[in-house]
Amino acid sequence: MSHITATYLVHDRKGDLHKKAESIALGLTIGSWTHLPALEKKQLEKHKGEVVDVQALPENEDTNRYFKEGRSAGLIKIAYPSANFSPDLPAILTTLFGKLSLDGEVKLVDIQLDPQLESKFPGPQYGIEGIRNLLDVHDRPLLMSIFKGMIGKDLSEFEKQLTEQVTGGIDLVKDDEILFDNELTPFEKRIQVGASVLNDAYERTGERKLYAVNLTGRTSELRAKAKQAAELGASALLFNVFAYGLDVLQELAEDPDIPLPIMAHPAVSGALTQSPFYGFSNKVLLGKLLRLAGADLVLFPSPYGSVALDQKETADIADALTSEGPLKKAFPVPSAGIHPGLTPLLINDFGVDSIINAGGGIHGHPNGARAGAQAFRQAIDGVLAGRTLTETAQRSPELSQALELWGQPT
Amino acid sequence: MSHITATYLVHDRKGDLHKKAESIALGLTIGSWTHLPALEKKQLEKHKGEVVDVQALPENEDTNRYFKEGRSAGLIKIAYPSANFSPDLPAILTTLFGKLSLDGEVKLVDIQLDPQLESKFPGPQYGIEGIRNLLDVHDRPLLMSIFKGMIGKDLSEFEKQLTEQVTGGIDLVKDDEILFDNELTPFEKRIQVGASVLNDAYERTGERKLYAVNLTGRTSELRAKAKQAAELGASALLFNVFAYGLDVLQELAEDPDIPLPIMAHPAVSGALTQSPFYGFSNKVLLGKLLRLAGADLVLFPSPYGSVALDQKETADIADALTSEGPLKKAFPVPSAGIHPGLTPLLINDFGVDSIINAGGGIHGHPNGARAGAQAFRQAIDGVLAGRTLTETAQRSPELSQALELWGQPT
Repeated sequence: MSHITATYLVHDRKGDLHKKAESIALGLTIGSWTHLPALEKKQLEKHKGEVVDVQALPENEDTNRYFKEGRSAGLIKIAYPSANFSPDLPAILTTLFGKLSLDGEVKLVDIQLDPQLESKFPGPQYGIEGIRNLLDVHDRPLLMSIFKGMIGKDLSEFEKQLTEQVTGGIDLVKDDEILFDNELTPFEKRIQVGASVLNDAYERTGERKLYAVNLTGRTSELRAKAKQAAELGASALLFNVFAYGLDVLQELAEDPDIPLPIMAHPAVSGALTQSPFYGFSNKVLLGKLLRLAGADLVLFPSPYGSVALDQKETADIADALTSEGPLKKAFPVPSAGIHPGLTPLLINDFGVDSIINAGGGIHGHPNGARAGAQAFRQAIDGVLAGRTLTETAQRSPELSQALELWGQPT
Repeated sequence: MSHITATYLVHDRKGDLHKKAESIALGLTIGSWTHLPALEKKQLEKHKGEVVDVQALPENEDTNRYFKEGRSAGLIKIAYPSANFSPDLPAILTTLFGKLSLDGEVKLVDIQLDPQLESKFPGPQYGIEGIRNLLDVHDRPLLMSIFKGMIGKDLSEFEKQLTEQVTGGIDLVKDDEILFDNELTPFEKRIQVGASVLNDAYERTGERKLYAVNLTGRTSELRAKAKQAAELGASALLFNVFAYGLDVLQELAEDPDIPLPIMAHPAVSGALTQSPFYGFSNKVLLGKLLRLAGADLVLFPSPYGSVALDQKETADIADALTSEGPLKKAFPVPSAGIHPGLTPLLINDFGVDSIINAGGGIHGHPNGARAGAQAFRQAIDGVLAGRTLTETAQRSPELSQALELWGQPT
């Protein structure tokens, strides 16, 4: 029998985790069990939620952030029969964490779909391999950057910034997530100018690049806009999935007329993940659910910047995006606070199959964005060749300047 | 110049709230300001976020839940020019609380749209008055109930439960939010059987009733399904808006071919609202945003049950749904833990223009759901006539039994 298993971190004043687990398993499925007549039990058996595991958490250094006012904390694992819901994420979210999200201190920290249920989801259409094929870059982390302050700026500024970034060796450039449809840099124009800059770069350098245009507007118009984007020569889409809905992302990913990689932005997700007591773990929300729904690239806060996640959490996200399984792997894109001095750490933490994404760490280079991009590419090549950054910098003036400005973590 | 104002509850280790406010106002709009050339300042002026107010919170009994490890807490109010975003909720959410939702301890506790921006939103299509007209009930709180454990049950059980509930005097019956498309009680069949039960009840009693069918499935199919529902005789829709997206709700509300009241369910919303440090206030999410997007009825946890909100929070939600303004008012539906003994409290807290919604408090009546509904109607009539419940119960056997079972708050 197909099912989905959910793991919750819970706190209970009375400390009776088993009772709590039973009440969740029944409350979110058939309601009651013990006093039902035998015939009804037989009918309802296949719809009944089952407690799979209950584990009290010992209080120690790793877990004490989960303890509050001397209350007990524990992990509860419950299996929900797929017979209870249609195979779509809104139904699954409502079943696993609908009413329950409102019921005291409970956080959804893991989910596990059986193969039958997982097969109903598209997963990434390109994934890591597909994106590497588009760019024809197979042996190093990709380099990504973002436009700087485009609100109120026009297309000539857009063209200038994009040109500088790709000329320096950036593989992917993304719109700022707060750039919406506007008169100065309309969606269609950004796509057309972007495609032309990318074509020029290809003719000059032989390197393919991607520009992710921000797909925005009303929900029901997104698919038509994405198709139009593809027709106009767009190479990738940026999508604020948590301002819309996971199923909206999935419908974009599933649409055969939208042959574009989709980059999921974590905007608004902090409202769902930041509390240690409530909401979703980053692993579930940015990792498992985004991969199921079909994100090809997933941005999340890096462990190094001022807007940072714990290293454990970013590792969990990256694992969920890249673990072996029937779905394609999605590119982890740790973001924020990234400068060239962090390159060895990034490659150590996220591997070669990840994307190094910088904003200020590229635009803030003393010689501009082009030099900023060059510094990163030099750093990446050096790390992969087994050299220290200091060694690499000796023959790489752009990296040398970057290290002077931002330093290296010690 | 049109704008939206957001109020954030923030915590800052250094306690420099003014600096934090400036950094939010610039970071979420034009990026930088101080060192820009005069010409650029002139160009960007109309896109610049403005700090409207910064207020340190004094630590006292009401606020000390917001203080942590001796850190300062404060309220920051920022105005964002409408010129920066398209007039849709995904763009607004991404602007106000996209990246910022990930940036430490920050909670979006209020929003204020100017009239020009607010006029872009539909608000409720029926609202309190429209729903009262549908039911022809104008002078008392409405009474609502929910099906009990329908997963695994068939249409005959559905018909039986619905009949019992409406015969006892319930005005609105809703599906369980975890009942999705299924073979035993398919969407179309529930609508048809529901319409027939409601018609029979009208012919017998002259009272109109509403049955809210759970609108579920893939996002892009919802509008067609809702239209089909209307054609098949549905009288209202239940919608798990937070499993989909606010803009999805808005598109349902705006569609002239979907002439049905929409009941928004708070499933999954706890993941966004429960932390005192992160996410959205209930006032913003369940109050202001749901009313803007067009919910006619809004369910939220009552202050009385085991899944409960603070009385202050439920009052804020109800205020946001019913305050005077250009948009129609939405019905507050405090839910969970409601039994007849709470009727005086509910009417005192939420007024006559609210809905009393019970599940166990109706089905758990010693004489069944019909008697449970009667007990509530007796209680409501008694309260409106100025009698105590104990007085009313003397001539109302069903209420008397209910009070005996569940008691009255003292």
